[in-house]
Amino acid sequence: MANSKFEYVRHFELSNTTYLLPNTYIVIRIDGRSFHRFSTVHSFTKPNDPRALSLMNAAAVSVFHDLGGEVVSIAYGVSDEFSFILRKECNLFDRREAKLVSTVVSIFTAYYVSLWPTYFPSTPLTRPLPTFDGRAVCYPTIENVRDYLSWRQADCHINNLYNTTFWALIQQGGMTPQEAEKELMGTLAKDKNEILFGRFGVNYNNEEEMFKKGSVVYRNYGAVPESSSDDKVDEKEDDLEKKEAAGKETSSPAEAQKGKSRSQQKREAKKLAKAEVVIEHVDIIKDTFWEKRPWILHWTLGRQNEYAGTEQ
Amino acid sequence: MANSKFEYVRHFELSNTTYLLPNTYIVIRIDGRSFHRFSTVHSFTKPNDPRALSLMNAAAVSVFHDLGGEVVSIAYGVSDEFSFILRKECNLFDRREAKLVSTVVSIFTAYYVSLWPTYFPSTPLTRPLPTFDGRAVCYPTIENVRDYLSWRQADCHINNLYNTTFWALIQQGGMTPQEAEKELMGTLAKDKNEILFGRFGVNYNNEEEMFKKGSVVYRNYGAVPESSSDDKVDEKEDDLEKKEAAGKETSSPAEAQKGKSRSQQKREAKKLAKAEVVIEHVDIIKDTFWEKRPWILHWTLGRQNEYAGTEQ
Amino acid sequence: MANSKFEYVRHFELSNTTYLLPNTYIVIRIDGRSFHRFSTVHSFTKPNDPRALSLMNAAAVSVFHDLGGEVVSIAYGVSDEFSFILRKECNLFDRREAKLVSTVVSIFTAYYVSLWPTYFPSTPLTRPLPTFDGRAVCYPTIENVRDYLSWRQADCHINNLYNTTFWALIQQGGMTPQEAEKELMGTLAKDKNEILFGRFGVNYNNEEEMFKKGSVVYRNYGAVPESSSDDKVDEKEDDLEKKEAAGKETSSPAEAQKGKSRSQQKREAKKLAKAEVVIEHVDIIKDTFWEKRPWILHWTLGRQNEYAGTEQ
Amino acid sequence: MANSKFEYVRHFELSNTTYLLPNTYIVIRIDGRSFHRFSTVHSFTKPNDPRALSLMNAAAVSVFHDLGGEVVSIAYGVSDEFSFILRKECNLFDRREAKLVSTVVSIFTAYYVSLWPTYFPSTPLTRPLPTFDGRAVCYPTIENVRDYLSWRQADCHINNLYNTTFWALIQQGGMTPQEAEKELMGTLAKDKNEILFGRFGVNYNNEEEMFKKGSVVYRNYGAVPESSSDDKVDEKEDDLEKKEAAGKETSSPAEAQKGKSRSQQKREAKKLAKAEVVIEHVDIIKDTFWEKRPWILHWTLGRQNEYAGTEQ
Repeated sequence: MANSKFEYVRHFELSNTTYLLPNTYIVIRIDGRSFHRFSTVHSFTKPNDPRALSLMNAAAVSVFHDLGGEVVSIAYGVSDEFSFILRKECNLFDRREAKLVSTVVSIFTAYYVSLWPTYFPSTPLTRPLPTFDGRAVCYPTIENVRDYLSWRQADCHINNLYNTTFWALIQQGGMTPQEAEKELMGTLAKDKNEILFGRFGVNYNNEEEMFKKGSVVYRNYGAVPESSSDDKVDEKEDDLEKKEAAGKETSSPAEAQKGKSRSQQKREAKKLAKAEVVIEHVDIIKDTFWEKRPWILHWTLGRQNEYAGTEQ
Repeated sequence: MANSKFEYVRHFELSNTTYLLPNTYIVIRIDGRSFHRFSTVHSFTKPNDPRALSLMNAAAVSVFHDLGGEVVSIAYGVSDEFSFILRKECNLFDRREAKLVSTVVSIFTAYYVSLWPTYFPSTPLTRPLPTFDGRAVCYPTIENVRDYLSWRQADCHINNLYNTTFWALIQQGGMTPQEAEKELMGTLAKDKNEILFGRFGVNYNNEEEMFKKGSVVYRNYGAVPESSSDDKVDEKEDDLEKKEAAGKETSSPAEAQKGKSRSQQKREAKKLAKAEVVIEHVDIIKDTFWEKRPWILHWTLGRQNEYAGTEQ
Repeated sequence: MANSKFEYVRHFELSNTTYLLPNTYIVIRIDGRSFHRFSTVHSFTKPNDPRALSLMNAAAVSVFHDLGGEVVSIAYGVSDEFSFILRKECNLFDRREAKLVSTVVSIFTAYYVSLWPTYFPSTPLTRPLPTFDGRAVCYPTIENVRDYLSWRQADCHINNLYNTTFWALIQQGGMTPQEAEKELMGTLAKDKNEILFGRFGVNYNNEEEMFKKGSVVYRNYGAVPESSSDDKVDEKEDDLEKKEAAGKETSSPAEAQKGKSRSQQKREAKKLAKAEVVIEHVDIIKDTFWEKRPWILHWTLGRQNEYAGTEQ
Repeated sequence: MANSKFEYVRHFELSNTTYLLPNTYIVIRIDGRSFHRFSTVHSFTKPNDPRALSLMNAAAVSVFHDLGGEVVSIAYGVSDEFSFILRKECNLFDRREAKLVSTVVSIFTAYYVSLWPTYFPSTPLTRPLPTFDGRAVCYPTIENVRDYLSWRQADCHINNLYNTTFWALIQQGGMTPQEAEKELMGTLAKDKNEILFGRFGVNYNNEEEMFKKGSVVYRNYGAVPESSSDDKVDEKEDDLEKKEAAGKETSSPAEAQKGKSRSQQKREAKKLAKAEVVIEHVDIIKDTFWEKRPWILHWTLGRQNEYAGTEQ
């Protein structure tokens, strides 16, 4: 081959290939680059521009669709950032970090640019174009993942209360940004609530949920009807399998998912992939959200399908 | 802080933060995801679609402009891939791999999507949108970087000769893809040249340079006029500095760049940033290209500006 | 400072500093370097030398003692390898991989060399001295850790059955190593058992447990008496804490450990650190071992002590 | 296989396997763990114990011998630390970081413990035994490596001047450690020199070179006689090769090493492996040391032998 004497350079790739630890949740967080300037140039309303947030959400939904049903569990967005939680069984690109991060960022960017005219019909997109950077972090347990999401949502609340008050002082109170900043220095949440209500008659609790809670995106598996023609076929497979497996028992509750037959699991996967992707603005810090949608973090195909490719 | 009990999750980021080795060239290579299908759906001409290649080149030029004058040294594109060589002094994002890769991929994607109508005025962009993944590899020496680029350009030649012959057999020879593949199995370069010339009267050497050589993108520093009003001011600074430095000598030729005064280096950096980004379809395997454009890989601000921030 | 202009080289360390993912079990496995040759030069008995295995075990016990009570959960050794499972809360050296691996290897080596005359009183240690290499792998769940240990113990069984038969064919059957290897090619476990019993009257089940099962090393926490004068003081602390915590409830069984008061946890940690390190040759694949010693993998100080340093 | 269902755990190793960047110098630095306490328990003389330093040097020499002639270029030791510079062509363990670091640490530890009675005949080694941790850092250029070594030697000087003065104030001046520390706070090098000379009649320049400069360990290639019977054979090979290569020219001085025939390179490698390992206490910051021993950092087998395994 004419290029054989150059091919040694491929050996260098090995040093910069990171495989994310298996059996952990992968969080890919993307952030808008220089979005402070971008939002000014494109005249975003302050403190929150519903068009901009809805465009972020639409781009996030596209990530779910582009990657398919078995990759992203849930995503959470606030301001110009979005976090995608990948299932711990995810084996896309063999869990290579650079490919996972760059792919999510690329899909998000492509749809953000492409959908711009839908959300900002009268504002042409000017250069430099909107772009995003990304990073991946692994979390070993559901508790860690929920704490991660709680961290982002608590941050959303803190920032939004600050920004709502800051812009009220400017837009309604006639202050300069510097004066508003000084006014808010050292204030607690209740002080900011008082400023809003006392000076501007604004009850923070009545602000839009999207602004206060951010946006939660996930597949609404629970809403999908339980039965379909596809499932019929699968059920037969399942019966067969059950007979073969007779005798084996699965007692531990922790084994519940693993106790499911493989065709049952495949059926669930198929159903999940079909489930509509929804956007909600709700509390994800408390248990209620998770208890009502148990499939979001718990659903799994079982480890044997992912790594070994072997039949037990 | 309301979110302080969740913030421990940030500690997990440390485990997946890779800092690329300083003082090495960073190569970021991006690849189109599922471009085989994308090119079929969008009716790219085969074996090469000049519109698609020009769009790739335009997106690459935008990466140069978006990142500014001191980051990318040179880029090389072929088919649906593009490699960006970052200067070894590059300290963008503290050389964090995920941010570097995702940013380059995001910029490239944004411009590819945005510029699509310019290059494909009569072909609407349909879903799934075009996206790219990326990776970073470090190379310690100029020799390694040149071998990397030679590897890609040799690959371009091999693939293009194959594809040109393959599609000639189909489009002009009436073969099916399977027949064409079989026909080419085990053939050498000269065999393919003979098929092209003997059966179809095609002299491969007359094919378009963009198809045979790929696309080389760089700042045409050499073409920038040497003097400007900005430089005037800098020269004064320079004189002052020279006086201070009197007595110190720099004898070794390897010290040539370091021998330059800091204001001289800043002036060069400014000039480089202003230089026009050009696209050429030329041989980069032989020495000629590099000898005529010595600034591409050799130009440097010197290590002391980058890491220590200290005056020697 | 005289060395300030050189200090920039420290920045390069960042690129090769790996922090192991928090909240995962760290497995450090060490292997003897060129131990085939080393065992021949030092006349180890074949297929197993009880002196050599006991020396490995003594060196492993020293790792427990040197690192203190809260680092290693359990260790498993077979032949010239030993695996140390570090608790998932372990924060030693901020979980820097190179420091963790090199420290465990260094302790193990130091004691192996130093204790040699105790186990091989009539065999002087000759050069090259015995040395070990090591590596670290993270496992996110107890299930993964148990599967890791099961993998090593199953490997022990397979290798030992092979080696026992191989050396019987040579030592008692008069075969050359090549003949013995050929004889065993393609044989199953039952074939080897038959060769041992049929030709040499050896019942594999009666072989020494240390050879068949390997060596399990852990702190015998269960055997430590429950009460001591230290604990008295701690109990008072505990009462106080309980009163403060009144009202909070911890219902989920998974919260059992977290439900423990911090002084209770400290008391347990102290007790664990005092517990004798024991060596056993038992099955660790089945559940029995783990059910009887629940503290080995489950015991934890709770995450809040480890990462945040914050009071909730 | 009985253990096949557990083997999936091997996939997790991939996430924690780091391959150090090819074509860079690898620096492995080891440090004594808790040597402050160790040196007190074993009554090291202060500020420097020649026996302890000589033992460190002997252990370092053993690393050269154990790893063979082509791995370590040079090593530098001071106090309880030692840095080993591996040749940039080093491909030992495929450059896996954990194996490289742990192996060097293990060899060093084994010899330190084993040689202890030779250097401390009347001081028994007590527990905890002396152990070391290690880390690896890559440096892309000779300039970076020399700056690394200069950093360590400059540090040696600064620390030794401080310690010499500190212990003179205590041992000869009758101060407590606290008083000595306070006395030295904010002093410059010349102040310390004055304290030593003015109060204690000590001329720092007359202190032992090993204390002031540290220890430099390398193969004394230059001292090996040029010709031997082995070489005779090689020379014939070489002649043959030269004839084949006739016509090719190598003009650039940077190509000097690559211009050497492969058998010439092998001959040099063999000679280097035979060369005696020497310990010197000399300046390695200035150019002189390096100019007189050009083989230390420049010698190379050429990249084609290392990565591609291909004949050009």
